[in-house]
Parts: sequence; C-alpha cells; structure tokens
Amino acid sequence: MKNFADRLCDSVRLTQNPVVVGLDPRVGNLPNGLVGSVNAPTAEQAAEGFKVFCHGIIDVVAPLVPAVKPQAAFFEQLGPAGMNVLADTITYARDKGLLVVLDAKRNDIGSTAEAYAKAYLGAPPASVWGADALTVSPYLGDDSLQPFVDQSTRAEAGIFVLVKTSNPGGRTFQDLVSDGRPVYEYVAEHVEELALTSPGECNYGVVGAVVGATYPEQLTKLRETIRHGWFLVPGFGAQGGSAKDVAAAFDENGLGAIINNSRGIIFAHQRPEYKDKFGDNRWQEAVEAATRDMIDELYAETPASALKV
Amino acid sequence: MKNFADRLCDSVRLTQNPVVVGLDPRVGNLPNGLVGSVNAPTAEQAAEGFKVFCHGIIDVVAPLVPAVKPQAAFFEQLGPAGMNVLADTITYARDKGLLVVLDAKRNDIGSTAEAYAKAYLGAPPASVWGADALTVSPYLGDDSLQPFVDQSTRAEAGIFVLVKTSNPGGRTFQDLVSDGRPVYEYVAEHVEELALTSPGECNYGVVGAVVGATYPEQLTKLRETIRHGWFLVPGFGAQGGSAKDVAAAFDENGLGAIINNSRGIIFAHQRPEYKDKFGDNRWQEAVEAATRDMIDELYAETPASALKV
Repeated sequence: MKNFADRLCDSVRLTQNPVVVGLDPRVGNLPNGLVGSVNAPTAEQAAEGFKVFCHGIIDVVAPLVPAVKPQAAFFEQLGPAGMNVLADTITYARDKGLLVVLDAKRNDIGSTAEAYAKAYLGAPPASVWGADALTVSPYLGDDSLQPFVDQSTRAEAGIFVLVKTSNPGGRTFQDLVSDGRPVYEYVAEHVEELALTSPGECNYGVVGAVVGATYPEQLTKLRETIRHGWFLVPGFGAQGGSAKDVAAAFDENGLGAIINNSRGIIFAHQRPEYKDKFGDNRWQEAVEAATRDMIDELYAETPASALKV
Repeated sequence: MKNFADRLCDSVRLTQNPVVVGLDPRVGNLPNGLVGSVNAPTAEQAAEGFKVFCHGIIDVVAPLVPAVKPQAAFFEQLGPAGMNVLADTITYARDKGLLVVLDAKRNDIGSTAEAYAKAYLGAPPASVWGADALTVSPYLGDDSLQPFVDQSTRAEAGIFVLVKTSNPGGRTFQDLVSDGRPVYEYVAEHVEELALTSPGECNYGVVGAVVGATYPEQLTKLRETIRHGWFLVPGFGAQGGSAKDVAAAFDENGLGAIINNSRGIIFAHQRPEYKDKFGDNRWQEAVEAATRDMIDELYAETPASALKV
C-alpha cells in the first residue's frame, strides 16, 4: 500500500477529476419508492432505504470520481440500524475502488482520540469501520490530533482537519484575531506542520484541511499557508460555492484539492436542471448527469483541467 | 417532563452529590473473565463484555449518583456491534433512573448539526439513541450550536459545549488571545447567552459547558462568565484534578456542576487503594467504594457538602 496522500493523487489522476460525492441520505429526499410505500418509516425501514440509495449512487459514481464522503450524522440519526448501513456503505464503496472520506468531525483527548482513530482509519483489520480518511475537529488542540496522525501513518489513511468551515457561523470563533492572524490561520499552520511530517511522493502529506468553498479569499490565503496538505472543499453547489471559487485550492497540476458536492449530486433528480428529464424513476441517471456536469464546470474554471488526458 | 437543567438539579439533590460516572470501557482493563477466556476477542465478543461491564457498573451506581457519561469513542471502536451496546447501555441507565450524558463531542453545520441533535437528544421517540444530554464541539460557530439548543428545548434535553478541555493541548487554540481575552472566554460568553435563552426554575439553562478540572484558575474565572450554565467537569482523578480544584465550579447550594470520574471508578479494581481488598472478582464492590470515596472527597473540599441532608 501507498500512503493516503499518494493514493488520493493516484485516484484523482486515474479518474481525471477531483470530485467527491457526499453521501448525505435524508428520508424526505429519497427517490419515490426507495423506502417502500411507507409514510412514516421505522428506523429499520429508513436504513434499508439508505442502503439501496447509497449502493445505487456508488454504482453510478465509482467509475467516474475518486472518492465518496458519507456524512455520519445522517446514518447516526437512524440509531444502530443506521450504523449497520454506514459500515455496509463504506465497505461497498471501498470494494468498488472508491476512496472513502468519512465525514464525522470526531475528536477527543488522549486515549479517547486514539480510540476514534483506531475505530475509523484504515482498511480492516487496522480499523473496524475501514475509512480511508476522516474529518477531525481541532478545538481540543495539538495533542488531540496526534493519535489520528499516528494511526494514519500506520494504516495508510489520512485526516482532514477543520480549518475554515463553509457555514456563516464559521466566523464566530474561527475568525477571532490573535496577534494579527485569525484562529483558523493558527490551525492551518499546525496542519502544514503535520502534513510535513507525513509526506508522500506527490508533495502532499496525510494530514489535510477542510476549507469551505464559500470563503474564496480565505481559501486562496490558506493555500499559501498549507502547501503540503490536501484540501477537502465543501460548500460547492447547494451552499453557494462555484467552480471559480475553488480554483485557488488546486496546484498547477490539478492536484491538492478534492471538491465535495452532496445534495447537488445525490438529489439531482429534484433539481430543476434534471427533474423533467429524469425524474424519480431515472434518479441514477440524474446522479450521473450532475456528476459529469460538475466535472465539466471544474474543467472550465479551475486547474483541474490539467488532469484531462 | 421538566427541562434538563431542572431534572439535573432534582437528581443531584436526590442523590445528594454531583458525581458522574464515566463509562469508558476498554478491553484491556475489564475485570478478568468479562470477555470470557478469549485472548484476542472479536468485536462482537468485546461488545458483549462491554455490555456486561456497563450493566454491572450501572447496577452499582444507579442508587448512588445522578448521572453516567458513556464515552462514544470506545463503543464506536467496536463498530456496529459496539453501537448496539451503546444504545443498550443508554437505555439500561435511563431505565435505572440515571441521567445519561453522552460524551460524543459531535457537531457539524446546518441541517447536519440538526441530524446529530435529533439522533441523540431526548427520550425516544424524540431521538433514537435517547440521551439526556450530549457534549458538543464549538469550532463550527454559533449557527452550528443552535440546532442542539432547539432540540434540547423541544425534547427536555441538554448540551455541554466544550469550553476549556482538560488536556495539555487544550491550550493550543483555546488559549489564543484575541483582544485581551482567550478564545475559550468567547465560547464561554456564547454558552452563557444560550443558557439564558433556555432557563429552568433552578437558575440554570439547558446549555452548559465542559470545563476541565486540570485548569482550576480558568475554571474559577469561567464560573464568573457562565452564571447560568451547568458545568460538566472532566479531569478529576486519573488526569490529576482534585476535589479542591473543582470547588469553584459549584454555587453555594452545591449545584451548578457535575464532576466526572471514569477510570478512577470503573477500573477501581486495578487501583492500589482497592486492588488488594477487592481484586477482579469483587470489582463491583471496588466501583462502589471508589464512588463513595469520591463523594466524600467532594463533601470535604467543595460546596457539594451543602447537598447532604
């Protein structure tokens, strides 16, 4: 196995694009029929619907993109039944050749952080959940991040540390200014330090950063601070971030950033652009069309075009 | 039902102490025989051991203390099998009359934060996991906390926001100084605002703060900032915090703070003070002795003595 940063480079080069499809299943948005004809499904019925839905998306996008990003919260909302489907979804995606970035924003202190790291990071038996990478929250500080770095190094996995999030409230504490620099810049500097301790052959380390597409100026600045960490960029599409907004996240080879889209792809059957053409019955074709359209947008406006062979 | 802050007041008054028993099961520390005679247990075998262990602790401490705090990471480390036991443990503790503070340090943005809140907060059917309270990370800002406050208000539940954590690395970002005040003070001010919007009859609101016992000076100062939020205080015992260190967390009635002890109580059978007397076979008696000793320490050194009738 190669380290995670290199595996991500390989997958982005192989698929010739940096799109991550976010798996955020919601009962109210599933295509008709996916939770049967049940009006108020039980957790088990909803979980079964999530499973069919996630498999259906993975089947479509596995040949197209380098990675998927299951959002843990939506599976957790269904209790243990949802957790079974989360485990199944991760395995199914891996088996189809996709990298799996689990978006769970975990962290804790000391041996508890280690338990999270060992729970999620690395192909089984390195971890039981088997994600290739995990999103991690930085509030608990440097010693809370270290166990995730250590496990990533051991298990050919990676982490993305929250640096500048895409929501309006990302400003509340992340933008507090200390000695002339915002808090998120301090987090970014620490991410760069950690990335440098875990280098791959492709210039990047196994520690990356979550940087929202909705703050393009800060994203540009953060790319200068973090020169050796992959960016995981949420906020594209439904949240308002455009292809132009994320252009600065890439290096000149089209590497260094993966761009997530969740609702815009997985619920494409409900979007005006695709609804009439595909509708609920052909929802998987809507997923494919939305994925291909996003790839084209990135080709048109960002250095991701350098990936086209 | 009453709001969570009032329910916590009632439970602390009823049991006459503020001790929270942390449920942090680890395979290597379980009393002999609890995972059978298996050397390298499977996740399912370990989960079964966790279940027996957690039930055994809850049976002992339910008549003694107001609350337990399961640490999600240790259950998550066992995969779906562990999540089943987490759900079972929460239900078992609730059924025995304990309040359950789930230590999962969750958060995300917008509708994803809402999914976490609805996943965990409130007695079923308000949530599927059924915790009375949840620990929440503040890095994502004010709009990320609001869904947890809303769900808490709807479902008679509560949250504890990470303010000043007990680990050495808690300093890295929490102590950055902005305009003369550390970042954690800004978080504390926001906690106080939220607590004031959700008041109970006992002076406290449903939004509280996690403040480590290992930083007694900061704890004293934070009590001045947060006058209407409960403190959940980790770091007592194994991490070095003493009864004196947590004294300032209480109001004059012995309310306003709950003090967590995990390893010091649940693995008391391994501590020098209890090992010879009880050993592995009588591990539940060690749990009881360690709990009673902690209560006495708090009576001797803190305003918790006011709770004694």
